[in-house]
Order: sequence, then structure tokens, then C-alpha cells
Amino acid sequence: MSIEIDHLGIAVRDLEQALRFYEQVLGMEVNHCETVEAEQVRVAMLPTAGNTAGNRIELLEATHPDSPIGRFIAKRGPGLHHIALLVDDLEETSLRLRNNGVQLLNEPRAGAGGHRYVFVHPSSTGGVLLELVQK
Amino acid sequence: MSIEIDHLGIAVRDLEQALRFYEQVLGMEVNHCETVEAEQVRVAMLPTAGNTAGNRIELLEATHPDSPIGRFIAKRGPGLHHIALLVDDLEETSLRLRNNGVQLLNEPRAGAGGHRYVFVHPSSTGGVLLELVQK
Repeated sequence: MSIEIDHLGIAVRDLEQALRFYEQVLGMEVNHCETVEAEQVRVAMLPTAGNTAGNRIELLEATHPDSPIGRFIAKRGPGLHHIALLVDDLEETSLRLRNNGVQLLNEPRAGAGGHRYVFVHPSSTGGVLLELVQK
Repeated sequence: MSIEIDHLGIAVRDLEQALRFYEQVLGMEVNHCETVEAEQVRVAMLPTAGNTAGNRIELLEATHPDSPIGRFIAKRGPGLHHIALLVDDLEETSLRLRNNGVQLLNEPRAGAGGHRYVFVHPSSTGGVLLELVQK
């Protein structure tokens, strides 16, 4: 099996301010920006260079305070929201995790772009909200 | 310029317990384990597969409560400690960051393996402690 870093989701208070750092100062480039109405979030994707995995940083800004990212920031402040790892056998991995007593936050399901994903509770992962994705 | 994800540093309370998840359940493999006396930390490195960048997850367990990782966990609980990005022009990037009012936590200096690095304060990065590394 193969495991790669797919993306890092960072919850920010102000997307434009965060982009001033990541784009204008650090020198990364946004290749996609969208508002996901269902999640009440604005997302800017900044791919890293020079890798085959196509991994990226995703900056997430809530469009409403009472949304997943809005509530996260209200509770914990801005910062890393989740780490997404790319796997090549999502159903099998999910089953193996569940059989080992690991708490999954959803059944494997399709998200944006048709990619299937599952979220793993931080209690099993050393305190990190982990997303497993299969493309 | 090129920016890649180098590693994700995750502060854990119990390295063996975390490894049961990342190795035995998720299926990643530790390729290096060491105790860094100067930092009072035990580190297990789990490379991700299928990429040219050689990025990895680093699990960090404090060997003493009064150490950087020990204090981090006492204050915030286990979880992501830092994100490390690989750059190819560390001195120039550090200078550009400083000239833009970004707070660096150290002068660029050599760490383990001779790699040069600098830490960037979370106030500029959307709440994430960011390490920039050049190999």
C-alpha cells in the first residue's frame, strides 16, 4: 500500500491576510480558489512544487461563524485544522481502522471532485484530525 | 523557487501508542528512530511513499516534562507541533520574510544532518508554527 501527504488544511481568520504571507512573501501560488457553500467556507489551494504527489496547502476561511471552520476558530484559534493522507485502498483501510477500535467520523463517501474520503478522530492519531482520501 | 512539504511534526504523549496507530493500524513504517538529547525528545520518522520529495511524519515524544515538546503538550495537548517546508534559498527567503515584517524565531542555522533551518512565528502563518528547511 502507498500513503502520501495529500494536503494540509489550515483554518485562518482572514484569507486575504494569510495569502499576503503565503503568496506575496513566501512565494507560493494559489492555483484554485472557491467558496464551498455546503461547508460555508472559502478555500484557497496552494500546490507545493517539485513533487509527483501533487500535495498542497489549503487555506480555509469561514463564510459564517456557525460553520465547521468558524466554530473551530472560535474554540481553538486559527491553525492546522486537518492533515489529509492519500491512500490507495480507502475501503480496506477504513475497515482495518474500525476493526482496531479506531473511531471514524463518517462512512467513506464522495466529496469534491468525486474523491472518496473518511475522517479519523484525533484521539487515535496523536491529537490530529486526519482525513484519508482516495482519488 | 521551489517549495515542498518536508515533514509534519506531531507532538504525542506516548510514542509507542502513537506508533500502534501509524504503523500497525494505518500501515506506515518507521525508518528512523532517535533520542535527541539536546531537545529532550524521542523522534520516530515515518516517510510517506511514492513521492520524490521524501516527505515524512515525525512523531515527537518529550523525554522530560520541562522540554519544548513537554511544555507544548502541557499547554495545548498533543497534536501538530510544526509544519516544515523545504525551500531552495533559505537565506534569501529569510531576508524577504524579515523585510516584510514577519517574525523569525531564530537566525538561519544548521540542525541535525547539517540542514539549515529557520522557524517562523505562527502570527504570520495563520496560526501554524512553520519551519523552513534547506538541504
